[in-house]
Amino acid sequence: MLVVKVGGRALLSNARGIAEDISSLWREGKDVLLVHGGGDLVTEVSKRLGVEPLFVTSPEGIRSRYTSAAELEVYVMVMAGKVNKGLVSLLTSLGVSAVGLSGADGPTVVAERKKKIVVLDERGRKRVMEGGYTGKIREVRTSLLKALLRERYLPVVAPIAVDTEGTMLNVDGDQMAAELAVALGAESLVFLTDVEGLVLEGEKVSKLAREDLDRAIAKAGAGMNRKLLQAKRALEGGVRQVLIYNGKEGGAVRKALEGQGTTIS
Amino acid sequence: MLVVKVGGRALLSNARGIAEDISSLWREGKDVLLVHGGGDLVTEVSKRLGVEPLFVTSPEGIRSRYTSAAELEVYVMVMAGKVNKGLVSLLTSLGVSAVGLSGADGPTVVAERKKKIVVLDERGRKRVMEGGYTGKIREVRTSLLKALLRERYLPVVAPIAVDTEGTMLNVDGDQMAAELAVALGAESLVFLTDVEGLVLEGEKVSKLAREDLDRAIAKAGAGMNRKLLQAKRALEGGVRQVLIYNGKEGGAVRKALEGQGTTIS
Repeated sequence: MLVVKVGGRALLSNARGIAEDISSLWREGKDVLLVHGGGDLVTEVSKRLGVEPLFVTSPEGIRSRYTSAAELEVYVMVMAGKVNKGLVSLLTSLGVSAVGLSGADGPTVVAERKKKIVVLDERGRKRVMEGGYTGKIREVRTSLLKALLRERYLPVVAPIAVDTEGTMLNVDGDQMAAELAVALGAESLVFLTDVEGLVLEGEKVSKLAREDLDRAIAKAGAGMNRKLLQAKRALEGGVRQVLIYNGKEGGAVRKALEGQGTTIS
Repeated sequence: MLVVKVGGRALLSNARGIAEDISSLWREGKDVLLVHGGGDLVTEVSKRLGVEPLFVTSPEGIRSRYTSAAELEVYVMVMAGKVNKGLVSLLTSLGVSAVGLSGADGPTVVAERKKKIVVLDERGRKRVMEGGYTGKIREVRTSLLKALLRERYLPVVAPIAVDTEGTMLNVDGDQMAAELAVALGAESLVFLTDVEGLVLEGEKVSKLAREDLDRAIAKAGAGMNRKLLQAKRALEGGVRQVLIYNGKEGGAVRKALEGQGTTIS
C-alpha cells in the first residue's frame, strides 16, 4: 500500500504526468491512495470571490492558512470540488477507478478544532487569536477507505476533516497523508512537492535516517519542516519509508520509490 | 431502497429538516440514496466570480443551464464542493454514515455530451448552438454505490457525470435520480421540490396513474414537466412509485411516502 500526497503546485504544473504515473502503478496491482493539496487555488478563488486570504505563522515558524467561515466555504468548494473532481476525472480518463472523497465522508477523518491559536505578528511577537475552522487530526476511521480499496478503487482524498459535531475543518494535507498512511498500514508515503527533495545547507539529502530527523527539522525551511514533522509521525506510526520528490518531474512517484529524491527511513 | 432527489430551493430553505427526516429513515434500516440539486447556488457563485450564467429553453419548453467551460468549473465547485459536502456534514452531525460522491466517481454515471443543442431564441425561433458541457445520461455503473450501500453508507450524489473520455458534464439532477433509482432497483423515488406536488388547472393532483402521465406532461409548467418526464422514465424502468412533495415541509420524505404529495404509480 502506497500513500501519495501531491501538493497544489506540483498539480498545477504536472497533474497529467502525476496521474499517468499513479495510474500505471495502480494498473500493476498496487493499492494507491492519493491525498492532494491545492492551497494556491484556494487563495486564487478566494480573491476572485472577494474573500481576502489570511496566513499566519506559528511560534515554531510554520506558516498556514487562517480559515474564517467565509474562507472555509471557498476551501471546501476548491478542495472537494475543483481539485478533487479534476483529479478524479483525469484518473478516470486514464482508465483508473478513482473515487474522490474528503475526510468528512464516512466520516473518515475526525479532527479537533483549534479553539485558540498562537501566532507571530509582523514584529515576531506572540499573539493569541480565535482558531477559525482549522483542525488537528485526532482519529482516522478506516472502514470506508478499506471497503473502497478492497474493491480496487483508488481513493482521492481532499484535506477536509470533521469535528465530532460534524463541522468541516481545514486540515493540513501533509498531516492527512501521514495519518492515513499510518491508519491504513501503508508501506510507503510519498510527498510530491515542487522541490527535488530535502535540501540542507545547499545540498540535497538523498538518505536521511529517522534518528537525524529532529536535527533536519530544526534546519529545514518553512513548508519542508512541516513535511519532515509528518514524516517523523508516519515512521513512528509504522510506515517503512517516507519519500520526498519533485512532482514536476516525469514519473515522479516511480522515481521517488527508486530513491531519486530524499528517502527517510 | 429509496432514492430522494432534493432540489436546491428546498435545500436552501429546509436542509436541516430534510436531513433529519432522511436520517430517521436511515436509522430505521432503510437503504437511502440522496441526489441533490443546487442550481440557484451555482448561479449565485457564478455571478460573484464574474461568470455570467446563461439559460436556454428547448423546443419542448424545458429551460436549463447552458454550461460553458467556465460555468462547468463553478458548477463542479458548488455541486461537488459546497452543496455535497454541506449535506454530508449535516447528515454526519445527525449520526448518519454519509458519503458524498458525484457521478464522475467510480465512474458511476456515464453521459453523452450534447454536441449541438436546439434552443428557442427570445422570439421563439429555433436556433442550433454548441452543446457546451451538458450531458445526457447513457449508463449507470452501480458497483461503487452497491458496495457503499452494502456497508450501510448513505450515498449523497451530486449531478455531475463523465463522458467516455473522462470529461465532466452537468447532468440534470432529476434525470440522475431517475436513472439511479432504475439502476439500483429502487422501490420509490421521491422528488422534494418547492411546491406541494403536481398542480393541474389550479388543483393539486394526489394520485396520477402512469397512463395519464403524457397528458399531465403536456399541461404542466416548466420544471414540473421535467420531473414528470423523469417519473415516466423511472416507472418504465421498474420503480414502483414516484412521489413529488414540498421539501420545505417538516418530515417531507415521510409525508411524501404517506401520500401527502402527488403519488404517481
